Amino acid sequence: MEPFSFELLATDGSARAGVFHTPHGDIETPIFAPVGTQATVKSLTQAHLLELGASLVLSNTYHLYLRPGDDLVAEMGGLHQFMNWQRPMLTDSGGFQVFSLPEFRKIDEDGVTFKSHIDGSIHRFTPEKAVQIQENLGADIIMAFDECSSPYDRAYSQRAMQRTHAWLERCQAAKKRPDQALFGIVQGGIFPDLREESARFVASLGLPGHAIGGLSVGETKPEMHAMLEVVNAILPAEKPRYLMGVGAPEDLVNGVMRGVDIFDCVLPTRLARHQAAMIPGGGRINMMNARYAHDKGPIVDGCTCYTCQNFTRAYIRHLIMAREMLSGTLISIHNIHTLLTLVREMRKAILEHRFEAFAKSYLDGYKA
Amino acid sequence: MEPFSFELLATDGSARAGVFHTPHGDIETPIFAPVGTQATVKSLTQAHLLELGASLVLSNTYHLYLRPGDDLVAEMGGLHQFMNWQRPMLTDSGGFQVFSLPEFRKIDEDGVTFKSHIDGSIHRFTPEKAVQIQENLGADIIMAFDECSSPYDRAYSQRAMQRTHAWLERCQAAKKRPDQALFGIVQGGIFPDLREESARFVASLGLPGHAIGGLSVGETKPEMHAMLEVVNAILPAEKPRYLMGVGAPEDLVNGVMRGVDIFDCVLPTRLARHQAAMIPGGGRINMMNARYAHDKGPIVDGCTCYTCQNFTRAYIRHLIMAREMLSGTLISIHNIHTLLTLVREMRKAILEHRFEAFAKSYLDGYKA
Repeated sequence: MEPFSFELLATDGSARAGVFHTPHGDIETPIFAPVGTQATVKSLTQAHLLELGASLVLSNTYHLYLRPGDDLVAEMGGLHQFMNWQRPMLTDSGGFQVFSLPEFRKIDEDGVTFKSHIDGSIHRFTPEKAVQIQENLGADIIMAFDECSSPYDRAYSQRAMQRTHAWLERCQAAKKRPDQALFGIVQGGIFPDLREESARFVASLGLPGHAIGGLSVGETKPEMHAMLEVVNAILPAEKPRYLMGVGAPEDLVNGVMRGVDIFDCVLPTRLARHQAAMIPGGGRINMMNARYAHDKGPIVDGCTCYTCQNFTRAYIRHLIMAREMLSGTLISIHNIHTLLTLVREMRKAILEHRFEAFAKSYLDGYKA
Repeated sequence: MEPFSFELLATDGSARAGVFHTPHGDIETPIFAPVGTQATVKSLTQAHLLELGASLVLSNTYHLYLRPGDDLVAEMGGLHQFMNWQRPMLTDSGGFQVFSLPEFRKIDEDGVTFKSHIDGSIHRFTPEKAVQIQENLGADIIMAFDECSSPYDRAYSQRAMQRTHAWLERCQAAKKRPDQALFGIVQGGIFPDLREESARFVASLGLPGHAIGGLSVGETKPEMHAMLEVVNAILPAEKPRYLMGVGAPEDLVNGVMRGVDIFDCVLPTRLARHQAAMIPGGGRINMMNARYAHDKGPIVDGCTCYTCQNFTRAYIRHLIMAREMLSGTLISIHNIHTLLTLVREMRKAILEHRFEAFAKSYLDGYKA
């Protein structure tokens, strides 16, 4: 059997329910992947992630390359062993981080030279290097090295897209490990013709999965939705589609409605560190608010997460005011649970062919 | 049945194995109590504490009085409900914290006026107030308001001891809740005659348990041991004995050897936040040490804690270098497990009448 295969179990409109088989187990789609930037999903133990029912976890090539180093991770048996996450993993290519660095970076056709945010040392990523690092890290899904443009700059978006395509072919050529699936990334800013061109090119390479990059980076929601429609009309139905860096609940619903299968985002854990708890149906509440000081209820009535089953809003607010780490842990558990519950509900709705009603009801009730 | 009773199951030399029955369950002694200063054992969820098999957890009156306020905790159903720890709890009296404040404090025969470390506001604790706060908090074991002296200052130690005795009588008179056990505290610095006088006085009041304060505050180990011997020769055998603020492994062994039943200390969690892991048999290792960068072993070979069963030294060092919160959580789990394992081993050794050999072997092998 192929190490990777995507089974499409049901479609409902453009929404899809499937299973992506990987060497470390199955990913039931649609899925949301929590982000473990530095080989740890911030403030959670791996036991918490298992208890939450997480399947796919993402980690960052840029960060792990710099610290502890991909050679060290390889020596420790790869990322799954190193962080003891025995379920599927995905690494990004490092491209997004490198292009987001505030300081020195030099881009040429061959790659990018950049300065470490840790010690200012100079490093260089090329498509080949990004693949080599990710082969050292050993995630199940690895990402092509790409360039994310400013979404409204047409000339730059075109140039970045062309570079992304050239780099994708080099990544595909450089890739050696059969137990890793390389996903190509569609770029093209907010320009339908560029997105179309990019999707056609990426789809032409016979890769086991496809990603949509350069969204949720400053464009409007309607623009994001339009790009998803353009791209997903072209990307083949028999391969999983991954919308990168998107994790707001309404974006998950809108993405699934337009044929996306996989999402990742730091949002649930980052919000938790800023005292914000996600509310199913959308919206968030600031747990530091004085109105919760005497509140005996859970973050969300009826929520089945560990946090809501065991702790009151008053206790969580106390932890925040007292600057206790446990607040970040408890809110992270709740937020990830909220997103994993949402993707499970969407999956069920698709399998039962009632996704349209589910999405409408969800988005109508959305309290952003 | 009385809400509190102490069953002495076995003695071996001066070492004792027993059970202290409380309204929230049994405490098998000897026991070590992790400290949840602000109603949370730092970096751990309550599920972690249950998994570690913790029974007694301590929390701090001074901190909870200031934030979130004992009235709020009472309104939330008391500390057990507030932090959702349904096993036995103990609160200190706030005395130690108030007397440790670097800034303004004024002591008189009636009580102490002090400045909040949070906002500089002025507050006053008296014995009656300390009891009232602890009745609001609702722990199973509450502590008398005492004054901890400088151990080598005889005049001050005597004055503080006398004040501690007067305050203990006032605490006993003020106490109303039958579901809380008030423990009196023996003081007297490093002076055997003062310790003897203090132990006799405290023992004369018919309290359900007795504590030994003012140790591990700067005196030598032989001085600490001498004081324990003087005091425990006087404190009645049929009541539990609690050595406050002591948590180094060799101190637990030396304490149990001299008749102590209960210990508490911030040491395991504080060490964890400073990257230090405890080693059974004594000693600690600095997990940040570069020698662990490539180390595939657990913190301690054969350790059965979650951390050692799942993660390598290399991974924990990486978390520390990357300033990830998970390092504090994982080392805290290991350190508390180490101390709870030690007290369980001592209990078993006492029940099997081989404590002397256990203690000798432990202390001989001690790598401080």
